[in-house]
Amino acid sequence: FEWGEALDLKRVEEKLSSGDYKAFTVEHVDTSTGIANPVDKVGELAKDTDALYIVDSVCGVGGMPLKMDEWNIDFCLTGSQKAVGAPPGISMFCLNEKAWNVVESRKTPVADYYANLKRWKPIMDNPRGYFATPAVGMVLGMTEALRIIHEEGLEARWRRHEVLSDAFRAGLGALGLEQFPAEGSEAHTLSVPKIPESVSDSDMRGLMRIKYGVIIAGGLGKLGGKTVRVGHMGNATSNDIVATMSALEMSLMELGYEMEPGAGVGAAEEVLVTLRVEA
Amino acid sequence: FEWGEALDLKRVEEKLSSGDYKAFTVEHVDTSTGIANPVDKVGELAKDTDALYIVDSVCGVGGMPLKMDEWNIDFCLTGSQKAVGAPPGISMFCLNEKAWNVVESRKTPVADYYANLKRWKPIMDNPRGYFATPAVGMVLGMTEALRIIHEEGLEARWRRHEVLSDAFRAGLGALGLEQFPAEGSEAHTLSVPKIPESVSDSDMRGLMRIKYGVIIAGGLGKLGGKTVRVGHMGNATSNDIVATMSALEMSLMELGYEMEPGAGVGAAEEVLVTLRVEA
Repeated sequence: FEWGEALDLKRVEEKLSSGDYKAFTVEHVDTSTGIANPVDKVGELAKDTDALYIVDSVCGVGGMPLKMDEWNIDFCLTGSQKAVGAPPGISMFCLNEKAWNVVESRKTPVADYYANLKRWKPIMDNPRGYFATPAVGMVLGMTEALRIIHEEGLEARWRRHEVLSDAFRAGLGALGLEQFPAEGSEAHTLSVPKIPESVSDSDMRGLMRIKYGVIIAGGLGKLGGKTVRVGHMGNATSNDIVATMSALEMSLMELGYEMEPGAGVGAAEEVLVTLRVEA
Repeated sequence: FEWGEALDLKRVEEKLSSGDYKAFTVEHVDTSTGIANPVDKVGELAKDTDALYIVDSVCGVGGMPLKMDEWNIDFCLTGSQKAVGAPPGISMFCLNEKAWNVVESRKTPVADYYANLKRWKPIMDNPRGYFATPAVGMVLGMTEALRIIHEEGLEARWRRHEVLSDAFRAGLGALGLEQFPAEGSEAHTLSVPKIPESVSDSDMRGLMRIKYGVIIAGGLGKLGGKTVRVGHMGNATSNDIVATMSALEMSLMELGYEMEPGAGVGAAEEVLVTLRVEA
């Protein structure tokens, strides 16, 4: 599939219908391009195949809707450090009965020690057992992050991510910046705008970081120098959106890019006011 | 080798002299039995073999002398959570040129992704590069632990572990408790005393934990219920030794074990006073 485009459902359908696959993987959110793939619609296609439907939702879980059972996802993976909002260091996964049967019945043994799910099974069944010394501090941090998610409510959290994302994109549009991801396929957890040709990527990010204390990431691979990646996930607030947009505006201004000061922030505000907060 | 005995140097020498081995591993400190193996003396034997000498020093590094180069150790592994004194969650290793050449020249590819040292190499060469999101908080904690070690001085740290260990064993002796590890092979990072036959393991450890807030570990495998494991490693102080010994005494006393109150602490004190501290 092309960079900046979501996956093509027709091609996935064609491939799956051949019955030649044991498993297929879909990336929920791609952090290079800012694309979110239609994991729900792929789930429709997954219904009638024996292949395992594996979803990498490292940058999705906690920020965008993901419904394992409803979408026929057999194995889903994520990390602690993205939209879940915990410190980096924990990988998480969830698998269903179908996926577990595959684990149980594989003929070639798993070469790795710690990546062997069968070794983890007794501990998943009884966490008081011992397999290896866990990173206790990380697990406690993770537990607190899950408590925060529970308090906010998953649906409310998804909505917040969508509003923050819409707001940031509206701001970018008001500044005349194009988006790299195809319209309608934008992730809610990060934005990937193109940088104006007249502006140097490293100057802009340098100014934002040094002068305004806002760190955004550079483009990856062939997008390096042409796009930037702005994360707005986890426990980000409207203040983070406003501060980041403002730092971007001021840096662009200083670098001679023509724009109306405050236009981006203003456009973002019009979306941010729609955020509903429980009293 | 028998549980409770260090490895037999003669047998190791015999095996190595056959030249039939690509690698051999020695556990520096065994946390089940409290044994420390003579990794230095094995290093003498390792000098004349092509086999890789691999040392698991999870419970040794930072608490007992370990000299990779001097002792011809090719690959050494440890963890953050033992005598290094950092939170659990980081594995560390060090390898020499000989071991790296083996990594480079292996014919069968490494099946695992993260355990493949070749993938880590570019990051080890340039930590500004990207391989995977590191557990940043863990790394910072680890750095602080290494700073603490540097401040104390490695030699002083080894000496402290030896004195604390001698003190604890002296106390156990004064209470009439036998040691499980063979004399002269005791680790400095933990003690493994046998429990008097008249005393219930779980009652004793339960009392220590609930009444005096001191947690010690039970015996592992066939030693369960017969021995306990008392860690005195990392940043443990003489106060920890005294408090643990005293909790042990009071719990034994309450369980009807005949002993002179304070005898264990007293014997420990006589050793602890020899601790030299830089002014």
